[in-house]
Amino acid sequence: MKYSMGIDFGSLSARSVLVNLTNGEVIGSCVSEYRHAVMDEKLPSGVTLGADWALQHPEDYLDALSEVSNGVIKETGVSPTDIVGLCIDFTASTVMPVKSDTTPLCFLDRYKDNPHAYVKMWKHHSAQPYADKLREVAEARNEKFLTYYSGKVSSEWLIPKLWQIFDEDRSVYDECDKFIEAGDWINWMLTGTEVRSACGAGYKACWNYNDGYPSKEFFKALDPGLENVVEEKLSAPVKPLGSVAGYINESGNKLSGLAIGTPVCVSVIDAHAAVPASGVTSPGKLLMIMGTSTCHMVLGKTEKPYPGICGIVKDGMIAGYFGYEAGQACVGDHFDWFVNNCTPAEYVNEAKDRRISIHTLLSEKAEKYAAGESGLLALDWWNGCRSDLMESRLTGAIFGMTLQTKPEEIYRALIEATAFGTKIITDMFSDADVLIDEIYACGGIAKKNPFMMQIYADILDKPIYIVESEQAGALGSAMFAAVGGGFFKTLDEAASVMVKKPSSVFVPNPGNTKTYAYLFGEYKKLHDYFGKGENDILTNLKNLK
Amino acid sequence: MKYSMGIDFGSLSARSVLVNLTNGEVIGSCVSEYRHAVMDEKLPSGVTLGADWALQHPEDYLDALSEVSNGVIKETGVSPTDIVGLCIDFTASTVMPVKSDTTPLCFLDRYKDNPHAYVKMWKHHSAQPYADKLREVAEARNEKFLTYYSGKVSSEWLIPKLWQIFDEDRSVYDECDKFIEAGDWINWMLTGTEVRSACGAGYKACWNYNDGYPSKEFFKALDPGLENVVEEKLSAPVKPLGSVAGYINESGNKLSGLAIGTPVCVSVIDAHAAVPASGVTSPGKLLMIMGTSTCHMVLGKTEKPYPGICGIVKDGMIAGYFGYEAGQACVGDHFDWFVNNCTPAEYVNEAKDRRISIHTLLSEKAEKYAAGESGLLALDWWNGCRSDLMESRLTGAIFGMTLQTKPEEIYRALIEATAFGTKIITDMFSDADVLIDEIYACGGIAKKNPFMMQIYADILDKPIYIVESEQAGALGSAMFAAVGGGFFKTLDEAASVMVKKPSSVFVPNPGNTKTYAYLFGEYKKLHDYFGKGENDILTNLKNLK
Repeated sequence: MKYSMGIDFGSLSARSVLVNLTNGEVIGSCVSEYRHAVMDEKLPSGVTLGADWALQHPEDYLDALSEVSNGVIKETGVSPTDIVGLCIDFTASTVMPVKSDTTPLCFLDRYKDNPHAYVKMWKHHSAQPYADKLREVAEARNEKFLTYYSGKVSSEWLIPKLWQIFDEDRSVYDECDKFIEAGDWINWMLTGTEVRSACGAGYKACWNYNDGYPSKEFFKALDPGLENVVEEKLSAPVKPLGSVAGYINESGNKLSGLAIGTPVCVSVIDAHAAVPASGVTSPGKLLMIMGTSTCHMVLGKTEKPYPGICGIVKDGMIAGYFGYEAGQACVGDHFDWFVNNCTPAEYVNEAKDRRISIHTLLSEKAEKYAAGESGLLALDWWNGCRSDLMESRLTGAIFGMTLQTKPEEIYRALIEATAFGTKIITDMFSDADVLIDEIYACGGIAKKNPFMMQIYADILDKPIYIVESEQAGALGSAMFAAVGGGFFKTLDEAASVMVKKPSSVFVPNPGNTKTYAYLFGEYKKLHDYFGKGENDILTNLKNLK
Repeated sequence: MKYSMGIDFGSLSARSVLVNLTNGEVIGSCVSEYRHAVMDEKLPSGVTLGADWALQHPEDYLDALSEVSNGVIKETGVSPTDIVGLCIDFTASTVMPVKSDTTPLCFLDRYKDNPHAYVKMWKHHSAQPYADKLREVAEARNEKFLTYYSGKVSSEWLIPKLWQIFDEDRSVYDECDKFIEAGDWINWMLTGTEVRSACGAGYKACWNYNDGYPSKEFFKALDPGLENVVEEKLSAPVKPLGSVAGYINESGNKLSGLAIGTPVCVSVIDAHAAVPASGVTSPGKLLMIMGTSTCHMVLGKTEKPYPGICGIVKDGMIAGYFGYEAGQACVGDHFDWFVNNCTPAEYVNEAKDRRISIHTLLSEKAEKYAAGESGLLALDWWNGCRSDLMESRLTGAIFGMTLQTKPEEIYRALIEATAFGTKIITDMFSDADVLIDEIYACGGIAKKNPFMMQIYADILDKPIYIVESEQAGALGSAMFAAVGGGFFKTLDEAASVMVKKPSSVFVPNPGNTKTYAYLFGEYKKLHDYFGKGENDILTNLKNLK
């Protein structure tokens, strides 16, 4: 029997899985929580952090790695020599300054009180001014790389974080030899080889397979001192997902318990590892990861930048394809807002008496209405519009209220609005020649709210397959490891064994699709009117606040 | 000392006041409730009524008249010979079929089980199909009278109610000699003279001082049997408000206790009696009667039909002027909807603990925001838009929500929206050359909600005077009686003695007016876009329900 190992490094813990490659069974799993968790108020030494800071300690990653890798080997009794490969996925951009021998700066005594020496987590948002300036300069210079991100740059990305260090603490900047994604750093620790993932570099560091990183001239325009930043801090081979980054060396063996020589695959962004784990290994299948917000991923055969697409990266999801990403900024958050701010006391009491959640109660009541019966329509921009308009200052709107309007009708209208927002995205992909035949959904909301998923099926007018997602990250990584380790030739082949059938499917209800098609036309008209400059009230109102 | 008497016939009771004409003091008041109240399910005999029926019993009016007139005379000890005149105001159109000797058909034994023989109250809405057909025919014939009502005909008016009888029970139609407003009928009972009020006929029976009732050709077009309806059922002199309808005769004396020969003035619609009682006796002053809905009244020197004005009637408010009326269909109802459907449990509990109403709590919280700070804007069409768009199928909308939006911010936005709706109306009057220098407000909301009135002052950018209104109907009637009875030459003169100073005034806050002027511009843009045909979503949504 042969096995592959995947390890998913999340925001608070890491989880390993070991998968039997003959039957796809997950034979073991092990979890370890980071001792320092997220440091957003102070360092272990007591040094306080500024607003919007979010750091982590690289020691925690090594501890967790050791615990979950050795743990799952011990638990299952599998011989390490039967493990064909390892792949890890990691949150991103979660980056840190290290020395050329892999040592994180924060491990050095003289830097342990310096916040800039630690890992800047994906949700470290205090680099926002640098993201803004970066975008401004790139726009002014008409930089081509912007087109792959529809012209937007996030404060969560690598370059704004590195620029923040350069600007705020030159000693840390000068001292570090490399500024590296935590996922790539772990691989380097295990194999002794420094490789950057095309997934991380492409989605989070403005890197493109044709053009590489932005030019020296561009970085010089940011600041003359940054002119050589790529060769000084980032330089290393960038490799496609699914390829081998290196092989377990002696220290890697001590750390993980894996056999020396075991192939270690290029690291993956955690969300992107869910793509193969959901069975999305070829074009035509859209994956929606649905939680507080929704991330949409789909594979394309050609590279066609299109306004509203958050990222296009060759080999960034599945090697050989262009990985397209889009997003909705406010989904689960939207319904939580409603529950917290707009649910009448009577409903709260009813839910309490019946020992059900308010979401469940509202869904029950809302389910009794047919499509259109509420006479309500909403624009789901409570947290701005990511795709397709890429405008965070947009705000929400509801239309059609009467004196008879009930809370559950508004709740339903908000759900419908997020589904219309998704249809804008699927239509956008279709305009960008990215085919979508089937839709897959994973994440908390997809699994917990069948009422909502039926509405999505009716509005998108396509069956929606609900995929298991509790270990999606780790499972996706194990799939990459199985291919990188040579057991399967392709991810398609790996998927046929390792991916479970969807746990359920929602089929469009023909009684609703026609009404929703009409309502989507109205939604689109409002979306264009309020989102494309004809009436800027929804951004003006936010500016007024 | 001389006195005048006013009697206000409301929906459930009648109230008299007796006023000292030397100092304006109300020296006595008496109330009597109608024994049968509103009959909307069955007749006293048990005969059940259809949907949207609302009847009253004329016996109740006579009982109440006798009680409140004799009661206030007895209570004050005033000699009836010192009472210079009487005027009554009444809800309208509240109409009934009677014989030529004043006997209501429902008093006749053979009709006492026949619903059509009773009084059809203003809120009897089952004549809606007749109102619709009437409007259709009038539109097709391009009838001039429609222009005085912006092309709209209400099911609450006299002609649809009469047509309903003609169509549904010809025997009642044939048997009755007159179809008459209850207010005019009471005057007839007191004086033996049948006179129709220009106020009732003008606002509720499509009558105009130049053209009279609609033509025979028009009525024939409704139904050949209605060709002569005016001469057969309505014919009687129509007289301006403030003129004498007749004098108390013997049976009037028995009924009311007033001296034989006492002048009785032309009856007034109850809302319209509030006009002089608020001190609005000449052009330039807008009166807002604010309750579940708002009625706007103002005097003009010329007759200029204008889309959005609900009624223009010469001598219909104050003799010598054109009485202009406009309306907002949903004001107090709007805030009640919010309290009942959108207030979170936490707020309900806080209000309970502090023993204040939820409205008070929400106002307290909402008051802490500056104009525009909520970043919200609403279209106040929860119950359609009466003025200026005259479209009951319109629905409401809210713009600008974010995940930080609080319930009190929405509550404030709804209040602001109704004030923007009022500004649309004041601007409309200005376009129709009807001057507005000062604004007066009466009714429950005006008196109880200073927070709201301040917003109105800021948005309308004019001082708003709050007038006493508990007895406004009866007091306004007493003013007409004092002029009709010859004690004062004009209503202006009467007002100088009989009208109290406003109880308070709200002055625009210059810190808010500028922001609100900007927001009103945005409101107007949305109002035009959604209300004038460019995007019909707000009516389409209602049609979809």
